[in-house]
This record gives sequence, C-alpha cells and structure tokens, in this order.
Amino acid sequence: MAPINTANVVFLGLGLISGSLALALKRGGWVGQITAWGPRAPSLERGLALGVIDGYELELSEAIKGSDVLIIGAPPISTGELLATLPALLKAADATPIVTDMASMKGWVIDQMTDSYPRFVPGHPIAGSENSGVTAARADLFDGREAILTPDDTTDPEALKWVAAMWESVGSRVTIMSASDHDAALAASSHSPHMLAYALTKALDADALSPMRHGGGALRDMTRIAASDPVMWRDVALTNKESLIDAMTAVEAQLSLLKALIAEGDGEQLERYFTICRSVRRAHDAVLNPLDSSVTTQLSETNDPDKGQDTP
Amino acid sequence: MAPINTANVVFLGLGLISGSLALALKRGGWVGQITAWGPRAPSLERGLALGVIDGYELELSEAIKGSDVLIIGAPPISTGELLATLPALLKAADATPIVTDMASMKGWVIDQMTDSYPRFVPGHPIAGSENSGVTAARADLFDGREAILTPDDTTDPEALKWVAAMWESVGSRVTIMSASDHDAALAASSHSPHMLAYALTKALDADALSPMRHGGGALRDMTRIAASDPVMWRDVALTNKESLIDAMTAVEAQLSLLKALIAEGDGEQLERYFTICRSVRRAHDAVLNPLDSSVTTQLSETNDPDKGQDTP
Repeated sequence: MAPINTANVVFLGLGLISGSLALALKRGGWVGQITAWGPRAPSLERGLALGVIDGYELELSEAIKGSDVLIIGAPPISTGELLATLPALLKAADATPIVTDMASMKGWVIDQMTDSYPRFVPGHPIAGSENSGVTAARADLFDGREAILTPDDTTDPEALKWVAAMWESVGSRVTIMSASDHDAALAASSHSPHMLAYALTKALDADALSPMRHGGGALRDMTRIAASDPVMWRDVALTNKESLIDAMTAVEAQLSLLKALIAEGDGEQLERYFTICRSVRRAHDAVLNPLDSSVTTQLSETNDPDKGQDTP
Repeated sequence: MAPINTANVVFLGLGLISGSLALALKRGGWVGQITAWGPRAPSLERGLALGVIDGYELELSEAIKGSDVLIIGAPPISTGELLATLPALLKAADATPIVTDMASMKGWVIDQMTDSYPRFVPGHPIAGSENSGVTAARADLFDGREAILTPDDTTDPEALKWVAAMWESVGSRVTIMSASDHDAALAASSHSPHMLAYALTKALDADALSPMRHGGGALRDMTRIAASDPVMWRDVALTNKESLIDAMTAVEAQLSLLKALIAEGDGEQLERYFTICRSVRRAHDAVLNPLDSSVTTQLSETNDPDKGQDTP
C-alpha cells in the first residue's frame, strides 16, 4: 500500500465533520489533493477561503475524476442518496476509488448501495459538535475518539486497511464491528441521548416557570446537544428507527423504575442506584474524556450544591 | 449594615460547596474569621491544610459562639436536621446570628425549622460539581451563576440583605422567589435532569453491547452528573418528591411523543421539533454558559458527525 497521504481525496459534502477531517489530514502533512464536491458554492467557497480544501467542483461526475478516495460527509439521507448513485457513476467514469462515509447509522446507509461496490468501507467517527458547517471545522475533532468501521465479507481488505490507516493518522482509534451491532450500540450511546436532550429541552420550554432560566452546569450539559442540526437528527431518527426506539424504551423503563422508587420514598434503593451509576460513569471517564488527563481526579463544574459533603 | 466582609462566618459542614464559598469569600478579601463545624475531623483538617478555613470546631454548641453568620453546607437531610436543632441551641447560647443554607430544595428544608427564626434566609446557589469534598472546592464556582433566595413574610429584611450581598460578593446574581416556585423550577431544571442522567447510565450499563464504550462528547455530557454524590441526590429525591415526579413526567410525555413521531417516520414533525429545541437552547446559552464569552458563535465538541453540513 502506498503511503496514505499521497492519495487524492474528494469530500462529497463539506461541513463540520468533513471539514474537520480535511483539516486533520492537512495537520498530518497530507501530500495529495484535498478537494470537495457539493451542490452549492457558498460553503465550498468558505472551505476554500479557510484553507480547509484545495479546490472544489459542483458537478459530481467531474468531481470523482482522478480521485483515489471519496469520503462522503453529508447528512444520513443525502449519504444514502449518494451511495445509490455512485456505483453507476464510477462505472461510467471507469474509476474505482475507495469510498467511505461517516453517517451515524450503518445498516440503512449500506442498504442504499444497491449495486455491489467492494471498495466501499462504511464508517462512523464518534466525534462531532452541536455547531454546523465548515466554519466550525476543527483539526483536533477526532483526537482520541473512536472511529467505527463496519465492513462485511464483500469488503475489499485493502480499502478497509486504507480507511483504518486514515482514521489512525488523524488521532482516532479504530474499531471494527458489524453494522447491526454498531446501529444498536450507537442508538444507545448517542442517538437516544440526543432524544433525551430534545425531550428535556421541550419539556422545560413548555414549563410556565421558565426553569431553563435557572439552569446551571448540569442543565448546560444535559441540553447542549439539543442545539444540534435538526436535519441530521431527523435523518438519524428516520433511518435507525428500530434500534433507537429500543434504546429509548430502555431509558424509559429506568425512568419508570426511578419514579417508583421516588414515589415510595425508598432512600436505600435510590442511594444504591445512584452509587452504581457513579461507578459506571467513572469507569468510562477515559473513553468519554480521551484528551483530559485529569479525569480520574477532577472534572469541571455542574449545577448543584451540597454534593459530596464529607460532613456532617 | 456593616461591611459584610467583617462578619465571622461559621460553615456547618465543609464540602465542595461550602469550601468553594469559603474560598470565594477569601478571594474577595474577607476580614472576619471563616471557620467550620463538622462531626468528624478529617475533612475539616483537610480544609484547614488547604487554607479553605481558618479553624474548626467539633462541638456544635461551641462552634456557634461568637458567630455572625452560620452557613449550612450539608446534604439536604442533614441540613434539615441542623435547622431543627439550631433555634433552641442559639436561644441557649443567647446568640442571633444570620442563618442560611444552600440545599437544593427549599420547601422541605424550611419546614424542618419548627421554631420561628426570622434571621434564617433559605438559599440555593445554582452551582456545583460531580466531584465531592472540600478538596474539590474552587474559588470561582459561583462566578456568573445564580443564587436563589426564598424568604417569606417572616424573614428579617436585614438578614436577607446581608445574604444577598454575600452572594453578589462572590460573583453570583441573586434571584428572590417563593420556595414553592423554586422547588418546581429546580425540579425541572436540575433535579429531573439528574434523574435522566442516572436512568441513561443505568440503561447503558444493562446493555449487552456495552454502548458506553462507544460514547463520544454527547454521552460524556449526558452522563457526567451521574457521577454526582449519591447521598445528596437520594436526599433531593426524597425531599422534593412531588415536584420531581411532575418534572420527570413532563419529560416522559415528550419522550413518548418523540417515540411516536419516530415510529410513524414523521420527518417533518421531527425536524420541526428539533428546530424548536435548537432555538430554545441557543436562547439560553448566556445563562447556561455565563463565563463563556464565545457561546453565541462557537461551542465545544460533542459526539456525532454530519451535523450541520451545508451541503449537499
């Protein structure tokens, strides 16, 4: 395999994630061209002006010419639409670039590619932001974060190896898993938490006492992702439906249990429940705060007093 | 009113919040003595060694002697127990210091003080941490955060004025509201969000796919407060029961609505719902991130890709 940084990379779609990946590749000393395709010029122009990309193209059939790797950086449904059209387009151009995507669910996305294309490597970097667009791109977005790849028996091993090496080159650790395991795990670890943040935000907005005006660090954190891109999360909800509903149902069951313990005033069980949660959360500090060397001893502020008094 | 910083302050209980308040008072150039009472020496010794307090006392009846202000920094139920005993103790000592507390619910706490004591000012700083104990104390914990006071008709106006001035001197903005409004608003803005974090953490822990190992910035934030002190949160759940159950029920109703929209695949309503949430969250950025001057333009990382692509 040639050094990965000599490849000509074309991003299909330029936003926060693709822009951050472009910056991260450049931070590592990328030698190949890094360009982007998109249907509209303004964000591509911004990306060019910010030095995120070296050039752009508005015609997809033109953009793929001479590419070694196509990286789709688009909301899930647009990602699926691109994957549905790419094999024929590549065949017509007599091109066989590696193709990878970064959408948050893998089963639905893979299903959209009706023609077999072994050099497609489904991927998902576990990194992001509630901010939108290429102007929010950051070269360090993937540092210490996981990148999940979900190949199957038909995936070209060389393409898989290349995509894995690319993610490692931008500071990520790569995990290989099945698309169905990915979709169930991420429904629980990411998609359902977003729905919780949305539900909480909407409930607070409907409250006559305007409780959000009395929020502290806990509410800041518990609602931050409610500012995420609505189209992106609409797509996630539509395309990972079953796993998401299962994950939300699991949280609802725990909420019901907690409510019952509160209604009964069962202090012993509540304390036991909260103690287990503290252990579980602390056991995952290193995963959840990969760049924070102090996570085991000191974390940042939140919103409620009296926690952790040693006395009385 | 004499300059507030000449008062001799005694903290009843020394932990994260009381320790942080002691440090914040000292940061502002406190002239009076700052001491603490607690039933056990070790954390008091640590507080003394860290320069958080000037001295300590293990006998409550001794500790209150010569005090101008008693600030209770204890978990809610311990706070209630102290308030139940203080009036008689102060009468016996012929002392009338200002008394204030910092517990997360006010109605229950106020009810514990069976004897009338007009110089008691119920309070609640909306600041904290998932960390515990005086060693986690920080002088800047209250900067830009709200401090809510819930006096009633019987509260001594001079005592109220003093406590308000104290919170302002450590960088907080003071809000006066009724205890019942406080308890309902905080159940929604703080107590229920903690229960959501607990429920989410417990659901993830029970999942065979270990989804927490695949978490990013969103999960980091949505579970951070699940590491909070179990005793503190047990007490909150036991002493603000009705408001907390109401607030949890309001979130559950939103979760049910979201689940129905997801099951129906109603992309239009989902996008509308998420767009409203984004606006609501952004409208509260300044309250939730009081020290972050950049909140309106740029926030920090979370866990999912593809958000905010401008293209395609």
